[in-house]
Amino acid sequence: MNIHVVSSVNEIISDQLAGKTVIVIDVLRATSTIITAIANGCSGVIPVETVQQAKNSQIQGDLLGGERFCQKIHGFDLGNSPFEYGPEIVAGKTIVMTTTNGTRAIQKSQKAAHILAGSMLNATACAVKALEFGKDIVVLCSGTNDAFSLEDGLCAGLLLEEMVRLSEKTVATNDFGTAMMHAYDRVRSGLTEAILSCSNGTRLAKLGLTEDIVYCTQINKLKVVPLFQDGMMKQIKQIAAF
Amino acid sequence: MNIHVVSSVNEIISDQLAGKTVIVIDVLRATSTIITAIANGCSGVIPVETVQQAKNSQIQGDLLGGERFCQKIHGFDLGNSPFEYGPEIVAGKTIVMTTTNGTRAIQKSQKAAHILAGSMLNATACAVKALEFGKDIVVLCSGTNDAFSLEDGLCAGLLLEEMVRLSEKTVATNDFGTAMMHAYDRVRSGLTEAILSCSNGTRLAKLGLTEDIVYCTQINKLKVVPLFQDGMMKQIKQIAAF
Repeated sequence: MNIHVVSSVNEIISDQLAGKTVIVIDVLRATSTIITAIANGCSGVIPVETVQQAKNSQIQGDLLGGERFCQKIHGFDLGNSPFEYGPEIVAGKTIVMTTTNGTRAIQKSQKAAHILAGSMLNATACAVKALEFGKDIVVLCSGTNDAFSLEDGLCAGLLLEEMVRLSEKTVATNDFGTAMMHAYDRVRSGLTEAILSCSNGTRLAKLGLTEDIVYCTQINKLKVVPLFQDGMMKQIKQIAAF
Repeated sequence: MNIHVVSSVNEIISDQLAGKTVIVIDVLRATSTIITAIANGCSGVIPVETVQQAKNSQIQGDLLGGERFCQKIHGFDLGNSPFEYGPEIVAGKTIVMTTTNGTRAIQKSQKAAHILAGSMLNATACAVKALEFGKDIVVLCSGTNDAFSLEDGLCAGLLLEEMVRLSEKTVATNDFGTAMMHAYDRVRSGLTEAILSCSNGTRLAKLGLTEDIVYCTQINKLKVVPLFQDGMMKQIKQIAAF
């Protein structure tokens, strides 16, 4: 099995995703928030690219969530912080969501056989599920405005490390994946600090969102693995054991 | 001063290089070989993109060098192995060179204010020289066929580490540069082994070129820093001390 890590949305060639399992990563914060929402009982998250598409897709009872420039969108119910997606808000609800990078990455992956949401929060569960599908895997770092983001690369390194371990080293990866595994291994004991000092880390900290970074850099806090099905990211069955 | 690391030739936007110093890296093997040739007394290396351009650029006494598919080009004097560029062959000679990635990266950098050839062999000397120019720096990993190559990324990490040290931490880098510094720091004690197991490393080893990899992964063996001037990469003055 081959695992190809892609450095940003800009790098995807949609046709090359056909028949593969894609893991979309946007640690700060879209996939971390989607995973949290679903862990908190949200029925599903519909990812869309534009604010207008979000408004058009909303039906009665749905919540609108997302961000532009890291801030909640005017008129939306929720921003892009996982702390806004508590069970008292999202349980039983469908959320229509648009973010600058993460939901766009999901949209760009539509030709894949399976699309999973990955983050540090669900790393091992996500690795287990991706391997279970038995297909070649693309790990898509959403990045920021078409450029690589450190937090997504480190998460890709973590996921790869888990997949190498779980598969008993039967998977192969590209040079970029290998580099991300090395980088993750270097900073594993100071992961939150490394991410606080990177580009998105400093940007969010300046906006007073340091707590979001601390939350999103927790490894294996959650076991849910959102899968894109029927037009939305929805929970699949809990992973039994790993 | 800002140091932006670019993952492959495919990622360059030529206009964004204007006024900057570009360090082109192709560890396996173009820039390692150019640096070796110049250290061995070669007058200059003219980088061209195609085999036909190489033949057209050759004047009497010039040598033709380069590779396609890692092999010497039919009718050329030299391939792309640094061991072919000994002083008895190259001293006083101009070499017209075409390789799949490295010489192409130099050609694509023509809008820069300065273009240097960097590799592990001349890492510290190259870092010193790039900082001396006093301009923002782009570290361009040539990669392979428009994709990232591990050996170039690790060399970028090494160069960045040197520039951070030499500048007393007054330089800033992008997230990709930070990731490469982490990756280099992780494998520094087993650099040759890490590169022997990456994509180009395994390809060259299969062709019986393991010795080239061992040679090209030596750090600071040489102090020459080729600079693009008058249409060719030429030696600039030796770096006095570092």
